Amino acid sequence: MKLTEDAKNYILCINGGSSSLKFGIYEVHSYALVIRGQVGSIGKANSCLEIKGISGQIILRKPAGKKNIAAAADDLIEWLKENEINYPITAIGHRLVQGGPLHRQPELITLQLLNNLQQYVYLAPNHLPDEISTIEKFISAYPHVRQIACFDTAFHAHMPAHAKNYPLPAQYLQKGLFKYGFHGLSYSYIMQKLKEQDADAAQQKIIIAHLGNGASMAAVDHGISIDTTMGISPIGGLVMGTRCGDLDPGVLLFLMNQYQMAPAKLDELFSKESGLKAIAGVSDMQELMKKAPHHPEAEAALKTFCYSAKKFIGALAAALEGLDTLIFTGGIGENAASIRDRICQGLDFIGIELDPKKNTGNKNIISKSTSRVTVRVIKTDEELMIAQLVNATISQNKH
Amino acid sequence: MKLTEDAKNYILCINGGSSSLKFGIYEVHSYALVIRGQVGSIGKANSCLEIKGISGQIILRKPAGKKNIAAAADDLIEWLKENEINYPITAIGHRLVQGGPLHRQPELITLQLLNNLQQYVYLAPNHLPDEISTIEKFISAYPHVRQIACFDTAFHAHMPAHAKNYPLPAQYLQKGLFKYGFHGLSYSYIMQKLKEQDADAAQQKIIIAHLGNGASMAAVDHGISIDTTMGISPIGGLVMGTRCGDLDPGVLLFLMNQYQMAPAKLDELFSKESGLKAIAGVSDMQELMKKAPHHPEAEAALKTFCYSAKKFIGALAAALEGLDTLIFTGGIGENAASIRDRICQGLDFIGIELDPKKNTGNKNIISKSTSRVTVRVIKTDEELMIAQLVNATISQNKH
Repeated sequence: MKLTEDAKNYILCINGGSSSLKFGIYEVHSYALVIRGQVGSIGKANSCLEIKGISGQIILRKPAGKKNIAAAADDLIEWLKENEINYPITAIGHRLVQGGPLHRQPELITLQLLNNLQQYVYLAPNHLPDEISTIEKFISAYPHVRQIACFDTAFHAHMPAHAKNYPLPAQYLQKGLFKYGFHGLSYSYIMQKLKEQDADAAQQKIIIAHLGNGASMAAVDHGISIDTTMGISPIGGLVMGTRCGDLDPGVLLFLMNQYQMAPAKLDELFSKESGLKAIAGVSDMQELMKKAPHHPEAEAALKTFCYSAKKFIGALAAALEGLDTLIFTGGIGENAASIRDRICQGLDFIGIELDPKKNTGNKNIISKSTSRVTVRVIKTDEELMIAQLVNATISQNKH
Repeated sequence: MKLTEDAKNYILCINGGSSSLKFGIYEVHSYALVIRGQVGSIGKANSCLEIKGISGQIILRKPAGKKNIAAAADDLIEWLKENEINYPITAIGHRLVQGGPLHRQPELITLQLLNNLQQYVYLAPNHLPDEISTIEKFISAYPHVRQIACFDTAFHAHMPAHAKNYPLPAQYLQKGLFKYGFHGLSYSYIMQKLKEQDADAAQQKIIIAHLGNGASMAAVDHGISIDTTMGISPIGGLVMGTRCGDLDPGVLLFLMNQYQMAPAKLDELFSKESGLKAIAGVSDMQELMKKAPHHPEAEAALKTFCYSAKKFIGALAAALEGLDTLIFTGGIGENAASIRDRICQGLDFIGIELDPKKNTGNKNIISKSTSRVTVRVIKTDEELMIAQLVNATISQNKH
């Protein structure tokens, strides 16, 4: 296969989350997106495979039934095979939440790698088994197509020890218990876009706030992630849609002692029943924003979310010992102007001053021209990042 | 008993920690300290009852044997009874870590209160049982002396909901699972001293950093604690001598799943085997500072401690939406100039600029005259705060 020489070949990018399997098909040379889609609401009765064309027109929409992620992949593979003539796939990239301490950079998927990943399931028991099963489905379906694993922890691989290591006995560190950080594909993409927009700014002190249903922040100095809010798991850091973020360990001891909660129950509670959902019964930010004026619980959820984000901006700015650029991205970060406004309110003492008009207009730069910190909104694109990493990894493996 | 009318009566203040029982005897009217002492290293073979006079001269020093805190109280009571003629005790104040959701302000100790406190042992299982036993010893020994409970959570009783409540389902909140915060007696005392030194500053935005073997910070606005680093337990917040501070809940899930750790083992790990001790094998800050130039682990422990403190200053300043005064107190905060220096390094972007000479000299104000934030060192005195609260509570109960 001569990937860079054949015209009109395509890279398939697979991005499996906790309840969705998103994908994009990109033209190899231009990275032009030609098809995108997802199986959404996985595990629920209303789960649906939806495929869209370049201009967003719906090409296919069919119920997927109540399945797990790997089974949902079958529906996608079926459609891909039916359309192979139009979109011949010459490489596949997979987003993986975690590859353990030794697998951080993108890597050609081999049986050896899959075996290694199996050994790290304990680090991401909620995500990695499904992701590995999904890869296995695609390997069966495309045995001769090169497939690349892109780890969401890569961006944070160079955090210094004082940010990376938990203050716990070293024996646990050696078992892989340290801060990995996530949303790395998104952060890499954002840094690439920032470089295009302002190469100097990309070398300065930056906080990237990836705010979606899952949410994290990264502190970036000279292009290196020096700290991030998520830790060994995606439960840590900020208050999120259904996750609680960092806690006093005494909270877990309380729940274990008072309710005899086993680890699986605690995991369920902290991953799926906490955060905004625990406060307001709803985790969806758009719904909360609509409800907030008339429902105190929804208003309390927004307040808690913004307060948590504000505190972490302060913490990461202190970690950076200064701040030049703040970037909002992710579903909430890109679209919810009022949330950005609430997060930034009162942070003029560290140089953050939003321009209300630019903010409401979702402009690229939303800070005042006099603001010491430049505040930007950049739309993230994890699948496009995967496509680029696939090409780069295949090129590297050629030489 | 006419407390305020009898000359030369004394208040006994009892401050039981995790491994020491400190006490002070104060003259009722003047709050002059006449005797202070402690049973230190409780539970260890070298535990010792030490009693000092006004000028610090040692009056008594005798081995206490390997006992628990309540048993150590017996030794103290014995000495007090022998010296009753010189120091007639007319009121006793007890520091209590926790009194549950309903007991925050100082309170006359009654059998009813003790019964109520027994119901909240689950909120502070490591501290409250010993504290209650100690009170019971003093009630037996001084059945006719009024005794006052001073709760370390009082100072934080008015935190707003978005700071106080964990983003967890409301059913747990109703069981008392929320952020209480601790070191309240120290914070109250510091605010009192600040008022004396600069009444205007005491009404502005303040972070108090109580850094000792246990360490926490409080964000104070208009005299009210609006947030603090410790939560439902004293394990949360900053990295401490032997405690880990806040964690990604995934850390606990990892330890439970990988090592089948039960709650008691986790508690032991997070309370006594984490923090500086886990990094360097030593939790004592003075020892670490001596070792740091030649021992990378000691240097790593200092770096982690200062980095954690720096991030929480950033977080709390963001919570306050600005900062006017930063106050260092507690054993480390009052004495370790180099630690204060490292914590403040790079925080000039929020207006913190130390004056190296003033800092090394442990001056009251250690910031530059041009620093936007005034940085102070104030020596705390929890026992004196208890003495004042005892008088105030007895006065209130008279009317």
